[in-house]
Amino acid sequence: MDTNLEQVMQIASVAFNRYKTFSRQQKASFLYAIADEILAASEALIQQAKEETNISATQLAGELKRTVFQWHSFARLLEEGSWVEARIDTANLERLPVAKPDVRKMLQPLGIVAVFGASNFPFAYSTLGGDTASALAAGCAVVVKGHPAHPLTSRLSAELILKAATRTGMPEGLFAHVEGLGFEIGKELVLHPLTKAVGFTGSLRGGRALFDMASQRPEPIPVFAEMGSINPVILMPEKLQNEGGEVAQRYLQSITAGMGQFCTNPGLLIGVAGEGLDVFVKELANGMTQVAPAAMLNAGIYQNYEGKRTIVTSQEGVRIDAESQLPKSGIIQAIPTLASVDATYFLSNPLLHQEVFGPFSLLVICQDLAEMQKVIEHLEGQISCTIMATEQELLANKEIVERLRAISGRLIFNGVPTGVEVGYAMQHGGPYPASTDARFGAVGQDAIKRFVRPASYQNCPDFLLPDELKNDNPLGIWRMVDNVLTQ
Amino acid sequence: MDTNLEQVMQIASVAFNRYKTFSRQQKASFLYAIADEILAASEALIQQAKEETNISATQLAGELKRTVFQWHSFARLLEEGSWVEARIDTANLERLPVAKPDVRKMLQPLGIVAVFGASNFPFAYSTLGGDTASALAAGCAVVVKGHPAHPLTSRLSAELILKAATRTGMPEGLFAHVEGLGFEIGKELVLHPLTKAVGFTGSLRGGRALFDMASQRPEPIPVFAEMGSINPVILMPEKLQNEGGEVAQRYLQSITAGMGQFCTNPGLLIGVAGEGLDVFVKELANGMTQVAPAAMLNAGIYQNYEGKRTIVTSQEGVRIDAESQLPKSGIIQAIPTLASVDATYFLSNPLLHQEVFGPFSLLVICQDLAEMQKVIEHLEGQISCTIMATEQELLANKEIVERLRAISGRLIFNGVPTGVEVGYAMQHGGPYPASTDARFGAVGQDAIKRFVRPASYQNCPDFLLPDELKNDNPLGIWRMVDNVLTQ
Repeated sequence: MDTNLEQVMQIASVAFNRYKTFSRQQKASFLYAIADEILAASEALIQQAKEETNISATQLAGELKRTVFQWHSFARLLEEGSWVEARIDTANLERLPVAKPDVRKMLQPLGIVAVFGASNFPFAYSTLGGDTASALAAGCAVVVKGHPAHPLTSRLSAELILKAATRTGMPEGLFAHVEGLGFEIGKELVLHPLTKAVGFTGSLRGGRALFDMASQRPEPIPVFAEMGSINPVILMPEKLQNEGGEVAQRYLQSITAGMGQFCTNPGLLIGVAGEGLDVFVKELANGMTQVAPAAMLNAGIYQNYEGKRTIVTSQEGVRIDAESQLPKSGIIQAIPTLASVDATYFLSNPLLHQEVFGPFSLLVICQDLAEMQKVIEHLEGQISCTIMATEQELLANKEIVERLRAISGRLIFNGVPTGVEVGYAMQHGGPYPASTDARFGAVGQDAIKRFVRPASYQNCPDFLLPDELKNDNPLGIWRMVDNVLTQ
Repeated sequence: MDTNLEQVMQIASVAFNRYKTFSRQQKASFLYAIADEILAASEALIQQAKEETNISATQLAGELKRTVFQWHSFARLLEEGSWVEARIDTANLERLPVAKPDVRKMLQPLGIVAVFGASNFPFAYSTLGGDTASALAAGCAVVVKGHPAHPLTSRLSAELILKAATRTGMPEGLFAHVEGLGFEIGKELVLHPLTKAVGFTGSLRGGRALFDMASQRPEPIPVFAEMGSINPVILMPEKLQNEGGEVAQRYLQSITAGMGQFCTNPGLLIGVAGEGLDVFVKELANGMTQVAPAAMLNAGIYQNYEGKRTIVTSQEGVRIDAESQLPKSGIIQAIPTLASVDATYFLSNPLLHQEVFGPFSLLVICQDLAEMQKVIEHLEGQISCTIMATEQELLANKEIVERLRAISGRLIFNGVPTGVEVGYAMQHGGPYPASTDARFGAVGQDAIKRFVRPASYQNCPDFLLPDELKNDNPLGIWRMVDNVLTQ
């Protein structure tokens, strides 16, 4: 055991217990202060992240805005207060054969949360990201393992949180940042008895390894890992017949934006052979040749892209329809690529179902709708599925819609999967292997639910109850009182 | 693989998909019909369960009533409909730099749920119990493994559910009952790829074994295991000084009711040496000698009780304060027992922390409040903790209350842990090892949340949306629309 980590955990545990006594307003002011620090340091953050990730300043500026929005939205959630799901079942002393006690319940924080950020969102899903924000909002302490692919951005981010913590009088050690290139520090963090939950965004291999460690602990703890997804897109024939060219343009943009390094990148297109699909493919392929190669996040991700791309395109039946024809202007630059394969090959070869993280998409060509249905039935769990279809096609193919619904966290109609709205209604995460736990998501206010558990009070005197459960509802929150929602 | 189980799972999977298309009213009518069947067959059920479990007819009649109440309460939950947590974030096509899509989210069922019932509640937490009811209410298919300790009660229960299913037009195989004495059929059920969640009530060993199997599957699935708990009771000195005798009488009743075979049985009493505790112990010990031994649920549970009781009472420092002095009148009858030990021994001997399932309680005697605090700090996760204290003592010992809060699912003030209300505000289940997942509970309406996951629809045409998410809210349920709760 790293003595430094041991110390971090002990201090975080003390801080967690103190933080529990803070009011929702105090916690909200901490979250707002973090947002302020981010805004004040935005230039330095963007500069640092640009150097470490090759992401464009424009994209980073957008991500930073989203990050600030996330902190604000959790702060507002705390101020409003109803998220604790207060339930009150009042007593009935006359009930026979035994009196009915007064029982009250609300959500309370789990303890220390370990956060492993994403390489592809150095702000919104790394140290300053949704996992940290939702865990602190939930009332938990947080220990982040700085991402080795952007260590300085992560360190700068941590400094901002610590500054805000000091400024708003938070207990020392409530948030901590640990560093280490290897696997060891992460393993120690997940196995530490004081760690009560884990947030992770990254690869299936990494997420599953953490999940296995966590579930084999003497006291198992939940791991919320957002992992890979190929985000299948169903291209219905009539839709393509009507607007194949426009659909191709939207997907050209979606597949290659950010060099395809989004977890919602559409990596699998499924269409039915025919005139509409021909138009779509031609337009998409033409466009792909004109998208310039650009640097990926880092050398590891580039090598992974090239490796996976080579594996997939060298499988039996796979054709390369288009590759960028523009020259590379530097190292670790990915070549945007469109490949295609007939459904029979896809159905019999699991290697074609894997994610190729980057500006790559595989088109599966089906002979008819029946074969398309078969392909869909062979898909695993996904963060998102998309269907491009006319109203007629949606009405006539409810089974396809139902099947896509069953395997996905988010089902998109006539749009692209990239671009994840941050809000109550968003579900980011889906059935395994998209996530380790499809019952929760990492984006939006409901992400807070990952780090809490319900706790009941029976016949507790009013003066000892948390404000959320007191008789006169001093916080004015929504509560379920004797089976009725009231405020 | 058991070919029979394979067939059961395939049929259940088809049934699940059909059940999804049923209205909430149809599902509710199924649940009501099950309640009706239970009421119509109550005599036969009670008779059968009495023979198989040695539980008294009076207690079984009470449990049956509770079971019917559970089915009714889930049926009403479906009729009301707001439990799906509908969230709607409406579109903003004018937003820059990109238009905001329309996103809607609600809870949807996971799939087939495997249920392993409890031996000690042959109705309320077995085949007809809360796991089956909440899973069917959630929209899941259910496969119950009949409990080997009351196989005929379980079979009769299954027949009632099947009868109700036929009567209300449910798809064939939506509910199934499988039998088998050994471990094998349960293992196959948990490992089957179509199983998507597991409900279990029983021992720590059994629950952990299922959890380990489920988390090591290629696709891990959640296991909701309610396991052991010693349900510590903190006896504050002033409280005992004031009413030690009355407290003793309440606990005599709580420790020995149902021969102590409740998961909320108070197996650990923690007091401070002094006059009040002396009065309490004397009264409790006297009472214990006059409680007649009675038959336990079955031979295995009796042997387990005798074994564990012997282990605990033979540890260094443990004294037997009282045993029933009344004669045994039959076989497998447990002897109600009170033992005590000084805190120093308790602190250094983990064997004293284990559950002795039956009419047994261990009193830990502390020298002062500081030592009591230390004992509390050494406790593991519990279904419930109880504090018996005056108002003064509660005010002066907030740290004790906080610590009990942190380790328990339910915290009881001046009461007994036995008697679990069924309602929204109840949390039955606590931090490990009380449950495998403290974030959920098996009792009350919120138990339905174990078997669902949120799913989002993006830009879905209104005609394709589930009724819960349609624009005009045809079901009149509570929904979060653009961050505001409305009906």
